[in-house]
Amino acid sequence: MRYVTFSADGRTRWGWVDGDRVRALDHLHPSLKAAIEAGALAADPLRSGDGAAFALTDITFLPLIPDPGKILCIGLNYEDHRRETGRAVVSNPTIFTRFADSQTGHLSAILRPRESAMLDYEGELAIVIGKGGRRIPAATALDHVAGYSCYNDGSVRDWQAHTIQFTPGKNFPGTGAFGPWLVTPDMFGPPGGQTIQTRLNGTVMQRATLADMIFPIGRLIEYCSTFTPLAPGDVIVTGTPGGVGVKRNPQIFMQPGDRVEVEIDGIGVLANAIAQEGAE
Amino acid sequence: MRYVTFSADGRTRWGWVDGDRVRALDHLHPSLKAAIEAGALAADPLRSGDGAAFALTDITFLPLIPDPGKILCIGLNYEDHRRETGRAVVSNPTIFTRFADSQTGHLSAILRPRESAMLDYEGELAIVIGKGGRRIPAATALDHVAGYSCYNDGSVRDWQAHTIQFTPGKNFPGTGAFGPWLVTPDMFGPPGGQTIQTRLNGTVMQRATLADMIFPIGRLIEYCSTFTPLAPGDVIVTGTPGGVGVKRNPQIFMQPGDRVEVEIDGIGVLANAIAQEGAE
Repeated sequence: MRYVTFSADGRTRWGWVDGDRVRALDHLHPSLKAAIEAGALAADPLRSGDGAAFALTDITFLPLIPDPGKILCIGLNYEDHRRETGRAVVSNPTIFTRFADSQTGHLSAILRPRESAMLDYEGELAIVIGKGGRRIPAATALDHVAGYSCYNDGSVRDWQAHTIQFTPGKNFPGTGAFGPWLVTPDMFGPPGGQTIQTRLNGTVMQRATLADMIFPIGRLIEYCSTFTPLAPGDVIVTGTPGGVGVKRNPQIFMQPGDRVEVEIDGIGVLANAIAQEGAE
Repeated sequence: MRYVTFSADGRTRWGWVDGDRVRALDHLHPSLKAAIEAGALAADPLRSGDGAAFALTDITFLPLIPDPGKILCIGLNYEDHRRETGRAVVSNPTIFTRFADSQTGHLSAILRPRESAMLDYEGELAIVIGKGGRRIPAATALDHVAGYSCYNDGSVRDWQAHTIQFTPGKNFPGTGAFGPWLVTPDMFGPPGGQTIQTRLNGTVMQRATLADMIFPIGRLIEYCSTFTPLAPGDVIVTGTPGGVGVKRNPQIFMQPGDRVEVEIDGIGVLANAIAQEGAE
């Protein structure tokens, strides 16, 4: 099953993707996060919900989870990206955070803020937590996953590098694209051989398989849940492969009018245009 | 005026401090954050609310704002602390974040987690945002402050140093003490000459004045609100002076049974015992 958060008829809704249509489910649970909290995604009756149907072309995609309690982002989780950044090998995942209001949806603009021309892409796999917990063992961690999606962890590189902490460069509004939909684990299969690819104006900029992660998903959930409790709807953004624009020679940054896509096998394509803030 | 969030009679409440009593105000607004959002703190009628009164000795203090939308923590904002950490001089504030569920209240235990014996204190001034905004100029930033409080940014040093990002060491549950109360700007006066002091078992470990901050409060609000919108109830924890335990020779870490206090002139004392997680 694939689930999507969207707006249509002036309302924020969620539903499941049925071919080229979305069947709304907000009459059953107020949001996708609420449905995850209720443990409802696995329930067959959701499929026969009689909510309104919308053509996928008629909806506005919203960030898959617009209001996660926590967004934990993993840095330096692919070896080629670690090497291009010149960072040391470490024994634990590198964790920074995003605020929910830095997010945007599939087909909405990623915003280049007034303060910088150094807006970079980072294609990533996002995990949405289904069953929460503390100190979740890696061996059973995948049982805590509600599903998978694409994330573009858009980064304002000069603000990321102001100091030793990444927070400012990772939290400008409209920089974190999340979608288009949630793919449940039964449909996605075990994460591993799937390819993740980032394209800028059609050119492949990043390419890897999920098996290339330094710290696999189970270990990320184990580590994060050791220092902070995870709850349904929390998001872990699992890191980006090599090929980011800031480390190229010459550097490449995203410009207004550019189109960026993150594609993961078994999920689909998260596509966004770049817009100058204030001109969107 | 001084405002406090607490539990009494089995309910989470808030109120104002009237001598040795708290006068509950939750019949007017559901929480201190809601009252701030409503712009109600400045209103005189709050003083004449006829809510229940409780002796300060009978309440359980909760984190001053239990559920801020954002907790922005400033690293390396006093020169003696920057020097003891060996970090470079930078032109912008260093920002990391806390999740709300890492907080604890005045007189509740600060928890040493199972995973580490390296629990350290960091006495800090906390600012609670009153009027939100984006790109707030430093010159008018103090107009956006609802009030001031004490914060103990308890840090699990080995987890903070796992990688280049501080997140894990700053987010264990029960490590961030916040209180005892909010002191409004009219009572606190302009931040500057007030002394901030951290004591461990009665021994002064950190001592500075608020004027010693490298980036003053107005600049912190300006910088943070440039990359992320600030909202009523958001918290900025403004950094700690030199003297942290991890940089002493020999190192000093907080042990179960220890008592740690953060005192700021014009606010009061935030006091917490240390407890081993699971034994509190």
